[in-house]
Amino acid sequence: MMKVLVINCGSSSLKYQLIDSQTEEVLAKGLCERIGIDGSKLTHKPTGKEDYVVESPMKDHQIAVKLVLDALTDKDHGVITDIKEISAVGHRVLHAGQVYSDSIVVNEDVKRVIRECFDLGPLHNPANLIGIEACEAAMPGVPQVAVFDTAFGQSMPKKAYLYAIPYEYYEKYGIRRYGFHGTSHSFVSKETIKFANLNPENCKVIVCHLGNGASISASIGGKCVDTSMGLTPLEGLIMGTRSGDVDPAVVQYICNKENKTVDEVLNILNKKSGVLGISGVSSDFRDVTKAENEGNERAKAANEAFIYRVIKYIGAYVAAMNGVDAIAFTAGVGENDVNAREKILSGLTYLGIEVDHEANKKRGENTMISTPASKVKVCVIPTNEELAIARETVALV
Amino acid sequence: MMKVLVINCGSSSLKYQLIDSQTEEVLAKGLCERIGIDGSKLTHKPTGKEDYVVESPMKDHQIAVKLVLDALTDKDHGVITDIKEISAVGHRVLHAGQVYSDSIVVNEDVKRVIRECFDLGPLHNPANLIGIEACEAAMPGVPQVAVFDTAFGQSMPKKAYLYAIPYEYYEKYGIRRYGFHGTSHSFVSKETIKFANLNPENCKVIVCHLGNGASISASIGGKCVDTSMGLTPLEGLIMGTRSGDVDPAVVQYICNKENKTVDEVLNILNKKSGVLGISGVSSDFRDVTKAENEGNERAKAANEAFIYRVIKYIGAYVAAMNGVDAIAFTAGVGENDVNAREKILSGLTYLGIEVDHEANKKRGENTMISTPASKVKVCVIPTNEELAIARETVALV
Repeated sequence: MMKVLVINCGSSSLKYQLIDSQTEEVLAKGLCERIGIDGSKLTHKPTGKEDYVVESPMKDHQIAVKLVLDALTDKDHGVITDIKEISAVGHRVLHAGQVYSDSIVVNEDVKRVIRECFDLGPLHNPANLIGIEACEAAMPGVPQVAVFDTAFGQSMPKKAYLYAIPYEYYEKYGIRRYGFHGTSHSFVSKETIKFANLNPENCKVIVCHLGNGASISASIGGKCVDTSMGLTPLEGLIMGTRSGDVDPAVVQYICNKENKTVDEVLNILNKKSGVLGISGVSSDFRDVTKAENEGNERAKAANEAFIYRVIKYIGAYVAAMNGVDAIAFTAGVGENDVNAREKILSGLTYLGIEVDHEANKKRGENTMISTPASKVKVCVIPTNEELAIARETVALV
Repeated sequence: MMKVLVINCGSSSLKYQLIDSQTEEVLAKGLCERIGIDGSKLTHKPTGKEDYVVESPMKDHQIAVKLVLDALTDKDHGVITDIKEISAVGHRVLHAGQVYSDSIVVNEDVKRVIRECFDLGPLHNPANLIGIEACEAAMPGVPQVAVFDTAFGQSMPKKAYLYAIPYEYYEKYGIRRYGFHGTSHSFVSKETIKFANLNPENCKVIVCHLGNGASISASIGGKCVDTSMGLTPLEGLIMGTRSGDVDPAVVQYICNKENKTVDEVLNILNKKSGVLGISGVSSDFRDVTKAENEGNERAKAANEAFIYRVIKYIGAYVAAMNGVDAIAFTAGVGENDVNAREKILSGLTYLGIEVDHEANKKRGENTMISTPASKVKVCVIPTNEELAIARETVALV
């Protein structure tokens, strides 16, 4: 029986899950907050036991990892008796540039690549590397696996990943489309192939990962051929706080009108835009929908723009693949927002889609929401990035 | 018999056509170059007569208009005997913001609106206004009509024209999607409805205006519901020198890597990108295709990216309208590049499109290039913006 620890490090946080790879059950999960800041806290949630909170200074990620391992092996709150029971650690890593198109066991080369991609993932890659090194120090000899958020997008053809900018910028700086949410898109597309009983060799699948961050992918035979996020997670759909696609001249226009720097404007496009920007209400789609239902016109405009963009991307990806066999919805909005799915699908009847409105009301598990007569299978597939990382890790060690 | 002078003013140029509105024949056309610069030149082309070149200083547009009227009434090179034969003048004007959704006879209010939109069309609107005022001075009492490039896009619904940015930027600065090439999209969509015998009330038409500048529009019953250019003509398709869509973070990334200002980077995205940027060969699609045929890999990549983007936009607009009745190709590439059309349409067989490959080889006139069995009618419709402007002008005076 193999137990895998899954780690997702942010600059001042560390999320973890301990997963039994055979049963795929979560044995425990938790979160370290405010690492390197006053008021650090570990919240440990062992399955079937009460939550356990440790308020203890964590000056760095190494101490955080140590506290996580202590909690996992704690006599009262733990779920294993010895850290030797952990066979491998799977790390979520944002960016591998154009180097890795699959997960990989960490060695010095891998760490070098993660370091070389600091520029492309300035917020995440440094934290991801710190997490890896902290686990190496705490669990010498235990294999560490890096699972890259950009790996799935690496199979995109050149026509999909090249920007139409001077080619030297691609060569010198790696400015191209990478795509993100890759672990989720990969997991959900594979689950969709199984669940909808598609031909794994050549089936055409569109995955709509709709949450506070949102992206869409198109894959043929499980290989990504296009995805909506680009150089950064800003491109594509309208998100909670991110604008998605805008005329690049909008950046210039706001800079000049508001006398702001380009960094300031990009910060606005990342953090104050999206449905929050249009509605002025909230970045949470539930709040925006509530406001729309109460008659707020801007909330309505935000929701309509969000839905419309999703419809257009689905249409674009059907064209990109010259057809589609299945469309899957996942993540917060994709899994739970019955009305959003209804609205999106009502705009796609030209594809011969027929919605099973009763089935569409279900939540929480893989569900076929199209009728048997529908020409395209449509399903809801809950994403599970931690499980995906655990599976990738097991496959490599 | 009504004769209409059509004027298209740039900052240092003035293009004109004199059109007989009854027969829709061009009586003469021509170009003033280097207005306000040393070496000004008028090239006058009276139909059925030899070209006539006048090298004469033009210190401003008023003098240019005077020279044009002289040439039109010249004893040897002219086509009319008196400028009183000109019943009206139609002006191409870039931007009317959100004020005008149709052409309009120029009065002081109209001039004020054109002036208020200088910010939105900094290169074109000032020149357009100068052209109007020069014609007013030279032909007092003759009605001047403004035909706006943004008018067609004004029927877009909010979900299509709003960017997902803070709403105050829309309210304060008018930052939204406007769309351009409106005169062409409007003309070609109307011609398509007639030529393909579509229901003028509710037919769904996609017009692909593919030239050095390129854009796509979707219209229902002749009313634009979406179009690919946005706040400026930079957004959307890959063009000769324009990038079209990029992650907005690309602007920031190039600024920071190359230590350039946002204005410098936008200049690069407008003038050194597109197929020129990827291929490094040329902004002219014919040159890029020639290089591709000679084995140039980057030229191939540029062409493939261009075609792929067109396919995705068509797919997106089919979804935006939940179906499509006809697709029309127009402008330089759209009218003349047989292979580009073949490649685009070969990616759209999921729509039930069947190409008539023989018909697709024709050039120069309205042509149906889909087979009778095709579920979507596909045609080539040469655009004629001057004629469209003349028609709009006649309709108003």
